[in-house]
Amino acid sequence: MGGHLITIEGIGGSGKTTLVSSISRWLEARGIAAVVTREPGGTVAGNSIRQLVLDASKSLSPWAEVLLFEADRAETYSKVIRPALRAGKVVLSDRNLYGTIAYQGFGRGLDVAEIARVSTIVMGDAYPDLIVVLDLDPQLAWQRLSQIREGDRFDLEGLAFQQRVREGFLYAAQRDGDRAVVLDAAQDASIVASRTFAAISEVLAADHGPH
Amino acid sequence: MGGHLITIEGIGGSGKTTLVSSISRWLEARGIAAVVTREPGGTVAGNSIRQLVLDASKSLSPWAEVLLFEADRAETYSKVIRPALRAGKVVLSDRNLYGTIAYQGFGRGLDVAEIARVSTIVMGDAYPDLIVVLDLDPQLAWQRLSQIREGDRFDLEGLAFQQRVREGFLYAAQRDGDRAVVLDAAQDASIVASRTFAAISEVLAADHGPH
Repeated sequence: MGGHLITIEGIGGSGKTTLVSSISRWLEARGIAAVVTREPGGTVAGNSIRQLVLDASKSLSPWAEVLLFEADRAETYSKVIRPALRAGKVVLSDRNLYGTIAYQGFGRGLDVAEIARVSTIVMGDAYPDLIVVLDLDPQLAWQRLSQIREGDRFDLEGLAFQQRVREGFLYAAQRDGDRAVVLDAAQDASIVASRTFAAISEVLAADHGPH
Repeated sequence: MGGHLITIEGIGGSGKTTLVSSISRWLEARGIAAVVTREPGGTVAGNSIRQLVLDASKSLSPWAEVLLFEADRAETYSKVIRPALRAGKVVLSDRNLYGTIAYQGFGRGLDVAEIARVSTIVMGDAYPDLIVVLDLDPQLAWQRLSQIREGDRFDLEGLAFQQRVREGFLYAAQRDGDRAVVLDAAQDASIVASRTFAAISEVLAADHGPH
């Protein structure tokens, strides 16, 4: 398909959004205008879906939650990711598949194989070329988050839930082998960024056939 | 699981809502208080999903559409259908799985096997005991609809689309064998109702093991 898909994953407070900005600026300095998106909420319809799924008052059943995230993902792939990859661009996504495996699979206890089955239909041949996982102790993430913003309902699930979610991210990375890079997000943001830049350089230098 | 799930399927204008009311009254006269639901929009969150998916201005990608319907279905199964079946009740649903196969599979050309894979995860062991398909020539349906209400965006797709959708309903019924009853919805509503009552009587008399 051409192009490269790079996704940043990790629990709330691990520094994903900051890292996405850093990567974007770093690529720009190299003459690459990346297409930046996010899940959920990377499209017009996706924003409505995002509001629905993050609204704690709705108390969605776990599978409805998964399917809303997958609907948002389908929309983002159709309207943003696939067209950009087809045009040979670099796409950066703040969250992608791993969040669903971690939060709904490990966090809420749904069958990870069933989640993967739905995701495979949605993503098709546009699997990420590089997945950067920002790994962080949930307690540390919680301290960071409480200083900067109110948590959404996923941040508020309690420590045991967040621990399971963290394991979910590590499991997903393990399963993806070389495509996934796990970084210790407790380190200084500049170190995290420079490790990420190194990994991206490798991906951009290599020819990743499938797209 | 106990209980019985009866679903009414067919294109817009085929008389589903009228038939659901007739069945409900008929069951009530026999001392059975059925739980009546619908797709999409059988729950609080489902109503928001219904609004989103029927809003033509969003122009959703076909898979996002499927997954929103499946999210709505997951919510309805979790909050309405499964609890009612577990309590041994009769559940009547105005639309269910067939609509997704017909509109998104046959209408929009998505892979029917992939749609079925997602639906199977959502529905689990609560497959309908009886599916009544109201079959109608789309042109006749269109004449009926234009007299009573404005169409939503599925009604407005044009005749070729509606013809494919009709074939989708017939395909789904074929695949389900004895569980599905196809009725000619061009007949008088009272004839359609009495055929339906006969089919329901059989289902309630028999013991449908799996639930």
